[in-house]
Amino acid sequence: MSSAFTPDPMRELANLLSRLPGLGPRSARRAMLFMLSRRQEFLEPLSDLLAHLRLHAGQCSQCRALAVSDPCPLCGDPARDASILCVVEETGDVWALERARSMNGLYHVLGGALSPMDHIGPDQLSVAPLLRRAAEERVREVIIATGATLNGQATAHYLAEKLKPCNVLVSRLARGVPAGGELDYMDDRTLAEAIAQRRAL
Amino acid sequence: MSSAFTPDPMRELANLLSRLPGLGPRSARRAMLFMLSRRQEFLEPLSDLLAHLRLHAGQCSQCRALAVSDPCPLCGDPARDASILCVVEETGDVWALERARSMNGLYHVLGGALSPMDHIGPDQLSVAPLLRRAAEERVREVIIATGATLNGQATAHYLAEKLKPCNVLVSRLARGVPAGGELDYMDDRTLAEAIAQRRAL
Repeated sequence: MSSAFTPDPMRELANLLSRLPGLGPRSARRAMLFMLSRRQEFLEPLSDLLAHLRLHAGQCSQCRALAVSDPCPLCGDPARDASILCVVEETGDVWALERARSMNGLYHVLGGALSPMDHIGPDQLSVAPLLRRAAEERVREVIIATGATLNGQATAHYLAEKLKPCNVLVSRLARGVPAGGELDYMDDRTLAEAIAQRRAL
Repeated sequence: MSSAFTPDPMRELANLLSRLPGLGPRSARRAMLFMLSRRQEFLEPLSDLLAHLRLHAGQCSQCRALAVSDPCPLCGDPARDASILCVVEETGDVWALERARSMNGLYHVLGGALSPMDHIGPDQLSVAPLLRRAAEERVREVIIATGATLNGQATAHYLAEKLKPCNVLVSRLARGVPAGGELDYMDDRTLAEAIAQRRAL
């Protein structure tokens, strides 16, 4: 009897699931049992969806977001303001900004942030396609919405420099205290930036 | 633009994943992006495994555990001691006991615990099959290994009563301080049981 007794395909499934962000070995086993004990209501729809997505999910050739159509629904929407290009690190960032309902421009997904430690330079990101898009006549503003992390900010500065010849307005998201934020819980850098960039009332 | 912008099959996948134990809406979206951005190393193996398991995973007709063969590898193993029947609530409990490498008998999975609040009575669990198995000539002991929860203990008492006519030894797992447990962190009932069931050294 093996020390990790589980039938083979189930063990493989538990191993795969344990690699998902947020799941460990124990929660992966629970997730697997949840799936397998709900065949009709969970396992079959999940299996169908994954079979569909492995065939149809891919990168939008324009914005590089993960999508099931090319162009993606956002790039294909004539109501979006094509003069604004919002640059984000990942597809999830597009969805987050869409949920905020405050961006009516188009997006550009870099595929990550510059990270010398991980050998991620401009060639590993979709920087060249961004510069080509930014040089199009219709684009007037590029909003750099990379994360407020070290790598995200380094990426923003790099892109701002590269975008200079494109003759577009380059902006970045505001920094400060997040909505609902209690000052007591904010870290020093957030507070320092909120003070430095204070606005007149 | 819908407030929850995500392409439809992706939104369905995120919704499904968010129902897994341990995942919420945000972690489900992250898990989905993880899957979709790792097509060869994750999405395709996962899709293949689920397609396989939806066809081949099922209950072992003997112990009722989830398995990919019938009888399951444990029930089909002639080296197991068929005179001992270990009764557990769920398939995951079988795996936990197997990892402990201390049980060489066969198992019986009830499919849950009695729970009047949730309308789960003996007919919703595999109690009748257990009584039939316990009545077999070869069975000499039934170890009741339901959880040390209220419902688990009620189930244990109910089963002990029902098993009386079967003429088998009925036992249950020991209760007390778990391995590595610091007394200071134990709840009152655990300590009370550990004292009441103390053993001579």
